[in-house]
Amino acid sequence: MKENRTTSRITVDLADRSYDILVGENLLENARELVVPVIRGKKQIIITDKNVAQVCLPTVRRAMAAEGNYPDEIILSPGEKSKSLSVFTDLINKILDFKPDRSTCLVALGGGVIGDLTGFAASTVLRGLDFLQIPTSLLAQVDSSVGGKTGINTTHGKNLVGSFYQPRMVIADTGILNTLSPRELRSGYAEIVKYGLLTNSDFFGWLEANGRCVIDGTKNARQHAVSFSCKTKADIVSKDEREGNVRALLNLGHTFGHALEKETSYGKKLLHGEAVSIGMSMAFELSHRLGFCSATDAKRVKDHIASIGLPNSLKNLKNFDWHTDRLLTHMAHDKKTLNGKINFILAKGIGEAFICDTVPRKEVLAVLEDAIAS
Amino acid sequence: MKENRTTSRITVDLADRSYDILVGENLLENARELVVPVIRGKKQIIITDKNVAQVCLPTVRRAMAAEGNYPDEIILSPGEKSKSLSVFTDLINKILDFKPDRSTCLVALGGGVIGDLTGFAASTVLRGLDFLQIPTSLLAQVDSSVGGKTGINTTHGKNLVGSFYQPRMVIADTGILNTLSPRELRSGYAEIVKYGLLTNSDFFGWLEANGRCVIDGTKNARQHAVSFSCKTKADIVSKDEREGNVRALLNLGHTFGHALEKETSYGKKLLHGEAVSIGMSMAFELSHRLGFCSATDAKRVKDHIASIGLPNSLKNLKNFDWHTDRLLTHMAHDKKTLNGKINFILAKGIGEAFICDTVPRKEVLAVLEDAIAS
Repeated sequence: MKENRTTSRITVDLADRSYDILVGENLLENARELVVPVIRGKKQIIITDKNVAQVCLPTVRRAMAAEGNYPDEIILSPGEKSKSLSVFTDLINKILDFKPDRSTCLVALGGGVIGDLTGFAASTVLRGLDFLQIPTSLLAQVDSSVGGKTGINTTHGKNLVGSFYQPRMVIADTGILNTLSPRELRSGYAEIVKYGLLTNSDFFGWLEANGRCVIDGTKNARQHAVSFSCKTKADIVSKDEREGNVRALLNLGHTFGHALEKETSYGKKLLHGEAVSIGMSMAFELSHRLGFCSATDAKRVKDHIASIGLPNSLKNLKNFDWHTDRLLTHMAHDKKTLNGKINFILAKGIGEAFICDTVPRKEVLAVLEDAIAS
Repeated sequence: MKENRTTSRITVDLADRSYDILVGENLLENARELVVPVIRGKKQIIITDKNVAQVCLPTVRRAMAAEGNYPDEIILSPGEKSKSLSVFTDLINKILDFKPDRSTCLVALGGGVIGDLTGFAASTVLRGLDFLQIPTSLLAQVDSSVGGKTGINTTHGKNLVGSFYQPRMVIADTGILNTLSPRELRSGYAEIVKYGLLTNSDFFGWLEANGRCVIDGTKNARQHAVSFSCKTKADIVSKDEREGNVRALLNLGHTFGHALEKETSYGKKLLHGEAVSIGMSMAFELSHRLGFCSATDAKRVKDHIASIGLPNSLKNLKNFDWHTDRLLTHMAHDKKTLNGKINFILAKGIGEAFICDTVPRKEVLAVLEDAIAS
């Protein structure tokens, strides 16, 4: 089944760097037909990890073959540890072993780690190769594959080295999502909630009614949730590709969330979407305490997050020893901090987020202290 | 002495990435005043090498100080070997040690190696810091500091990993050039000759009359040669930042030249400008043999190059064992090769260069064979 009437096509509008996101079921089987209009050269290199390779590589390899020639392949170890300078260096050398030219296209087949690494490699090898995103996790489909942020981690922190570099196309095949664990699905769902909270209370209402169907795999519900999320992100990125202003909204829940992830070493103990869920709950709590948002809205956020089985408070996390001073230090070192001012995303209500760099430190501290004490 | 009536200001016109190149004597002493309009943050980090640090760092450090605060400094080993993935990794970690934010500005103080490394770091740390180019070699002032190409070498070849990333300003202080060796000056001069050959036969005529004054250090001659070169490059880069078409003209002499450099391991045996000088002579010889350009013009090119003390033929290089097949292989692996076709820059005459990807292999081979035999 190729692109058909159930496939959504969303354009990220960035002048000569514009591209489409396709969202639909079983798109991978006809991947080549979909991408032919956007690839220039004869050579493609698929970059994936061992886990994804087992599930998806045979289909994509077969689909991308042209005139009997299969694309080249590079298979990395799965997990966040691969987003290091040393794996990046190895990856670059492996790509150069295939003797690419500037028309060569890298195909990122995997979750956020593969997408971020491949995008960064694409932006730097020969000063820029084409690349395609084929996100295979829900988190990657609704967030990391869209918008051109690439990056790797260093000992100093996460995503501290990278680039803004747009793919030529994103193919989000929602059929792949059936292979994910429920916990991974919930983690990805957290970013879907974010889009409702940012700008569209109707969508948040829809999630309150249909969120469980998105997790459980009802086809139409997933299609709507993924394509609405991509559309919202595409609109924001089109307005502000390099995060000069409005793109910072996408960090709702992330200033708190990143601090929690840093404190738990970005591991399986706390997945990204779980940290963001707690972060969004805290952002609404902070917004309420500062008088911006009603208690009702803050409670709706926490309740919906809990109803999906995601954590909405530090008290949901057992066996952690939280320290407010350490969490505040992590926030101060966030990439978005400018000349020492931490940028928070607050809200005047559901669907009414805004950027604020004047939050008093003591209010942030109070939210953290209450969360730890509770 | 700050910017005054003898300072040239040239704009590289790239919409929101536009910037100015300042060319003049003793600009460094007032560097801060010059750059204040283009830097956003409070923190600057000067990146230089040991040799340049001895000559220029005290002046720049003093000039960039603000309210008693000196910029941070990172001093690397000099030479092409520093353009490696391992030095790049070290540099990134050193920059992150200084806890930069996105308004931090890196200051590249040095020749092409420092400029390429610093620019690449600036394009990737926190997905993009501001940076300034203060080129200290003639080659960097007229070529590598302008246009936003950054890069490092890998075991596969030179500049195979990098980015297009524009500085916020380029300050070319021609006073620094007095500290260079005659051989370094001549090597930089080769790129000045290139601009005459590309699009402006009048400038080439001026060089025939005044080239020695540029090398010997006559102030007005240097000012004119550097600013004219920057203007020519700025115009080309403004039309085609990412080398989709016309920017490829800047590779005149470089397809041959890079092959010679690769064969001599990019060392002191053959400097970049020396390789380019031979390459430009060969490109005009090839253009003549293919019927594009007169014998008179090809001879003028060779004669002027020789008059400056630069090599114009392989026979000027002693103790090398050249092999045409190896040189051709190097050319085929050039970054500009697309789908197997080598791009040559040929000329219909002095100042009339054009791009040609249909040069018969046997004609290239003949030029190489005759050069080796002679």
